Amino acid sequence: MSSSFGRRGPTTHYGRAGLDQVTAKPHDALAKVLQAELEATGQLIRERMESRYAPRIPQVTAHLVDAGGKRLRPMLTLAAARLCGYDGPYHVHLAATVEFIHTATLLHDDVVDESEQRRGRPTANLLWDNQSSVLVGDYLFARAFQMMVEPGNMRVLDILSSAATTIAEGEVLQLSAAQDLTTTEETYITIVRGKTAALFSAATESGAVLAGAPDDHVQALFTYGDALGIAFQMADDLLDYQGDSSATGKNVGDDFRERKLTLPVIRAIAAADEEEHAFWHRTIGRGKQQEGDLEQALALFEKHGTLESTRQTALEWSAKARAALQALPESEIRDLLSDLAAYVVARLN
Amino acid sequence: MSSSFGRRGPTTHYGRAGLDQVTAKPHDALAKVLQAELEATGQLIRERMESRYAPRIPQVTAHLVDAGGKRLRPMLTLAAARLCGYDGPYHVHLAATVEFIHTATLLHDDVVDESEQRRGRPTANLLWDNQSSVLVGDYLFARAFQMMVEPGNMRVLDILSSAATTIAEGEVLQLSAAQDLTTTEETYITIVRGKTAALFSAATESGAVLAGAPDDHVQALFTYGDALGIAFQMADDLLDYQGDSSATGKNVGDDFRERKLTLPVIRAIAAADEEEHAFWHRTIGRGKQQEGDLEQALALFEKHGTLESTRQTALEWSAKARAALQALPESEIRDLLSDLAAYVVARLN
Repeated sequence: MSSSFGRRGPTTHYGRAGLDQVTAKPHDALAKVLQAELEATGQLIRERMESRYAPRIPQVTAHLVDAGGKRLRPMLTLAAARLCGYDGPYHVHLAATVEFIHTATLLHDDVVDESEQRRGRPTANLLWDNQSSVLVGDYLFARAFQMMVEPGNMRVLDILSSAATTIAEGEVLQLSAAQDLTTTEETYITIVRGKTAALFSAATESGAVLAGAPDDHVQALFTYGDALGIAFQMADDLLDYQGDSSATGKNVGDDFRERKLTLPVIRAIAAADEEEHAFWHRTIGRGKQQEGDLEQALALFEKHGTLESTRQTALEWSAKARAALQALPESEIRDLLSDLAAYVVARLN
Repeated sequence: MSSSFGRRGPTTHYGRAGLDQVTAKPHDALAKVLQAELEATGQLIRERMESRYAPRIPQVTAHLVDAGGKRLRPMLTLAAARLCGYDGPYHVHLAATVEFIHTATLLHDDVVDESEQRRGRPTANLLWDNQSSVLVGDYLFARAFQMMVEPGNMRVLDILSSAATTIAEGEVLQLSAAQDLTTTEETYITIVRGKTAALFSAATESGAVLAGAPDDHVQALFTYGDALGIAFQMADDLLDYQGDSSATGKNVGDDFRERKLTLPVIRAIAAADEEEHAFWHRTIGRGKQQEGDLEQALALFEKHGTLESTRQTALEWSAKARAALQALPESEIRDLLSDLAAYVVARLN
């Protein structure tokens, strides 16, 4: 359910949000600035995914970790800590923690969704079995908690364990909200916080706390991570309906076929007349889909302008993320984080 | 995969280990001594299993929690803390943590094993679905970590997060060792530590550490929990082959049908001649079982005395648990913990 960021970002659409001056993708630029620490994080991840007794654990983990995710979440932790002047070694532990939590949720998500592809490769549940995915996910969760204890910072532990709770809660909520036409925008945001934004904000907030940053800086980085995560997931949900499948690696309308209540659908249902409501009830509520339904859904989005209004909302969250950064002292990393928030929605056309 | 302790213990066999003077089951007596704290633990469990957004979480959790497990693990934490003179409020948090970790593993185990019954009721994966069991399990893990942070004791966090790692590692190892005839006794013990003993020893050790007990007392309570857990699981594995199904709630030979490499089988394979080896290869290795195979397995156990030798080994672990307690000052709770270690193997005939 979680997203894989900017896998093959459609650079042709890149200028849309007024970022013409940015030539490299901001996460690539961030990766360059944080190169040494990202390498140390990768090293720690490889060390900690080992198991003395169960070789299947590193096999399954490596299958995901080596598949070339962008390491966006660990990068956020490292960037936040550095931005707040941290010069100790433990931001690397938190970065690896965050990536382990993310990897564990991917393993469990793919079981829950019965997915067959992830990052362009067969999923672990397909290559091994559901059992391995569930149990290796549990192992990575436990390893994550072990690692986050090492810096010896109670507030960091509180932030990261609370994020793990929010993530699981959001996933369960998504499960029970699935196919429920009465799902509200508020519930959608709660689900989005669970599936994406909670780990983004925990990544940035814990980095700031580890660095001993003042409260307003901690709050600013929390808000940045939260808003970035929401903008990011909204963009992902929008691209599901209008993305170029060669660019996103997903087929247009996957969410429709899986009957997901994302923002364009929620808003189209809110604006629906009786006949349209019957359409949504049949296709999303009951899952009775037939040839031409996706086209009809897209026509209803067009009629009510819900793709455009979703894009506007995503832009607002992106702007909120960028505004939060203003509380922080100017620096190269701050600018790159701002570019990143802009880039996330610059994919939208 | 984990066991439900003494659900309807066969009291007729109770005298076997020389416990004639004990009239109540020791865990009932312990529950009486710890009544107030167990009630506080139950209260905390009910509070923390709530979810602001996802009502399915308390529904699924309550289905397991209310099914009347013996709360053996939280009792061990409370007993250890009290035995070491703890008079603060946080042993209740650790006890609830331990029960949440246990409940989460049960939810995931039932998915992994495709179980349909647990504690005499349909499993959550059957009543709801695998998705709910995976995600509610994740929620309880996360909640457990949140709770264990509250006492603010780093060493306790280290113990409990390491136990969670060992549990998951043991489960994965069991998965890859399943049906593998070359599984050694050493691997079996590693698996048993993962599925049972790691949480027992973390429960007792963390209680002692929370109480600020001296190192030798902490070590004694760790050893007690570890040995108790191993004796307990060995007894469970043994009862699978010789239990009275009306007393254990399980059918004789379930482990054989599920091709589990428990100690009686491992020892029978080690002693097997060529023909017997072919039998084990067919029934456990390849899973080609037919009418009369269970009887044949039991006959081979009898021939090589492996049920009796397993019982002896379980008695040795029980004795080790009781011996460890000698390092601790005499008290009612210490005596009850000693009785408990005896009771676990007193079920064996």
